Amino acid sequence: MTSPIYTASIPVFKQMLGGLSGVLAKAEAHVAAKKIDPNALLQARLFPDMFALLRQVQVATDFAKSVSARLAGVDVPKLDDNEQTFADLQARITTVLTFIEGLDVALFDEAATREIVTQAGTAKEKRFTGASYIFNYALPHFFFHTTTAYDILRHNGVEVGKKDYIGTY
Amino acid sequence: MTSPIYTASIPVFKQMLGGLSGVLAKAEAHVAAKKIDPNALLQARLFPDMFALLRQVQVATDFAKSVSARLAGVDVPKLDDNEQTFADLQARITTVLTFIEGLDVALFDEAATREIVTQAGTAKEKRFTGASYIFNYALPHFFFHTTTAYDILRHNGVEVGKKDYIGTY
Repeated sequence: MTSPIYTASIPVFKQMLGGLSGVLAKAEAHVAAKKIDPNALLQARLFPDMFALLRQVQVATDFAKSVSARLAGVDVPKLDDNEQTFADLQARITTVLTFIEGLDVALFDEAATREIVTQAGTAKEKRFTGASYIFNYALPHFFFHTTTAYDILRHNGVEVGKKDYIGTY
Repeated sequence: MTSPIYTASIPVFKQMLGGLSGVLAKAEAHVAAKKIDPNALLQARLFPDMFALLRQVQVATDFAKSVSARLAGVDVPKLDDNEQTFADLQARITTVLTFIEGLDVALFDEAATREIVTQAGTAKEKRFTGASYIFNYALPHFFFHTTTAYDILRHNGVEVGKKDYIGTY
């Protein structure tokens, strides 16, 4: 039987990153059609001390790959965080999707009880079971960044809707 | 054994609605301290055709109570949607928390395979298993509204942080 922790993570990340990719594609088409500097959106933020769109996408994809790796018990892949364009962000999403789709379902068999340690060795170190990690920590953070990326674009008049955010499942 | 569908829903809704309540309390303190009309925040939206803060909170709580009821196989409680103030929203959150905390864990034993029908009898009718309903539909929507409520307040300069959004677990 497929672990519920797999069901709660990999297919959800796939769905929402697919949605995010579609939302970003519409944003890129929007700046092209209106002859706007892409950075007007990529560097847009809802408040000066919040992350800009580009960083929101980096962090959303970070959560997807790190959380998936930790739950599966494999090394967390490193990304260079050097994206600058919409095309770079799409490539990053594709890289993360390829990684998480490659994780065997069986790796998640013990995920619910696996001990997950975040920020190990620092004052902020936290210990979770896999179940608590995905439900109380990872999903709230992941959805925060996919939603805020969408909210930044909506706030800037890009014509995307809830359906785009939700993706396909 | 507690159903993973219970673990994925009731404690998550409790955590995030607790966070939302704290965020709204800081927003109310903010308007009081600055002598701002509370409606400047309650009716704030990120774009003209998005929901205002007050409606975001109504919809987030709607998802929490409706999704919990459907997964548990009990009637969905009706709320009047007549909130106008921060105090009204806090009362609504309390009502929903009381309802979901009162749902017996055992009601969720069959939740993963329970058939859930949304918008029954309309052209938009959708059929889910409980597992697909919570992971692919309910959580993405619920987090959308808790995050967007937070984003509206951040955008308006209320001093809340990610910790407030995440709540306690």
